[in-house]
Amino acid sequence: RSGEMAKSTQLIDNEVFRAYATYTTIVLLKMMLMSLITAYFRITRKAFVNPEDTASFGKGENAKKYLRTDPDVERVRRGHLNDLENIVPFLGIGLLYALSGPELYTALLHFRIFAGARITHTFAYLIPLPQPSRGLSWAAGYAVTISMAYKVLKTALYL
Amino acid sequence: RSGEMAKSTQLIDNEVFRAYATYTTIVLLKMMLMSLITAYFRITRKAFVNPEDTASFGKGENAKKYLRTDPDVERVRRGHLNDLENIVPFLGIGLLYALSGPELYTALLHFRIFAGARITHTFAYLIPLPQPSRGLSWAAGYAVTISMAYKVLKTALYL
Amino acid sequence: RSGEMAKSTQLIDNEVFRAYATYTTIVLLKMMLMSLITAYFRITRKAFVNPEDTASFGKGENAKKYLRTDPDVERVRRGHLNDLENIVPFLGIGLLYALSGPELYTALLHFRIFAGARITHTFAYLIPLPQPSRGLSWAAGYAVTISMAYKVLKTALYL
Repeated sequence: RSGEMAKSTQLIDNEVFRAYATYTTIVLLKMMLMSLITAYFRITRKAFVNPEDTASFGKGENAKKYLRTDPDVERVRRGHLNDLENIVPFLGIGLLYALSGPELYTALLHFRIFAGARITHTFAYLIPLPQPSRGLSWAAGYAVTISMAYKVLKTALYL
Repeated sequence: RSGEMAKSTQLIDNEVFRAYATYTTIVLLKMMLMSLITAYFRITRKAFVNPEDTASFGKGENAKKYLRTDPDVERVRRGHLNDLENIVPFLGIGLLYALSGPELYTALLHFRIFAGARITHTFAYLIPLPQPSRGLSWAAGYAVTISMAYKVLKTALYL
Repeated sequence: RSGEMAKSTQLIDNEVFRAYATYTTIVLLKMMLMSLITAYFRITRKAFVNPEDTASFGKGENAKKYLRTDPDVERVRRGHLNDLENIVPFLGIGLLYALSGPELYTALLHFRIFAGARITHTFAYLIPLPQPSRGLSWAAGYAVTISMAYKVLKTALYL
């Protein structure tokens, strides 16, 4: 049992893997925050999508008028979906990259740019900042993921 | 070769990792089930989104009338997207948590609550159950993921 | 330090894991390509969703007319979401499967069918090809993921 435990903690003792664990957890928590922001806007804007969510506002037409879309809610939801589309590749490719034996300095650079880019992207989307703020922050995260994918394929390619 | 194989099976021999593998597979299979339920409602409600999907119903206006949204289909799709938004963080944070050396008892508690919460969430969404059933099941899965993220950052933090 | 590094590269030296790393990176890169195709159609069809994205087209009504949905854009977005719904399960279940000690030949067969199915699915969706092309390619990727999930649960089940 203790031997197994030791095994399972070895990866987490590796500095590159610890950096991956840290930045992955940060960007996933940031993505999870989008759920709370969506809920906040749904409640303050009174804009719901499920009839059962408006039951506390009364019955019939009185509740029905809150089944509507709101621009602020839709904006957060688009930001959330964009997170999914970009953080899922980071989750997978980043893990394989962390296991492909990169230099610690290079790995940290990749992870930090990705996390910074996604946090900037969220601010750019939600404030919103004028373009190309959102576009550039999206592109930075995208480029870093491509760079890690290249390293993974160079190290591990087995077709 | 056999040495490598042994290496690759060590993680899967660890009890915490086996528990992670089991519950992750269960929640991912549950998420995949949403695709089948969507297809079931699309076919029984005759509500499609792609013109090529209605070709078997004839041509022109006859097929076009089936290109429409249906409340039941949209409900399943929202449940599916909610799964993605919550199971992706569990996939990543749960893996890192399983590698961070938690007690087996504590890890099992986290994984079981998460899986139970997501299965309850699906029933609450699809039946639908009156609120706060769906809200509470969502919150339980969310809280458990935050708790695992805290353990990962406490164990592995490397910025 | 070098001992840790060696540890971290052991997984990546395993042939099954290398195959998983290769095919996962390929399907994630393919999924990322959907973002670029969406951007391409948004720009060429002039169909945007965020007001700040149309600011370069002028102000007021002149820019507002480009805030619209376009069938080609929506089609790519549906393909992208379908990728998320299917590649996320592959990412998680495939990783656990690769760690569950499968035969190299069997593992390669699973990974190759999945990658081929998802690439075919994208062509079937975007061209679009008549049904059941898209349906069958979706089903092939789905079946392969179920098969891997079965192996994971058979090897690792710990409830």
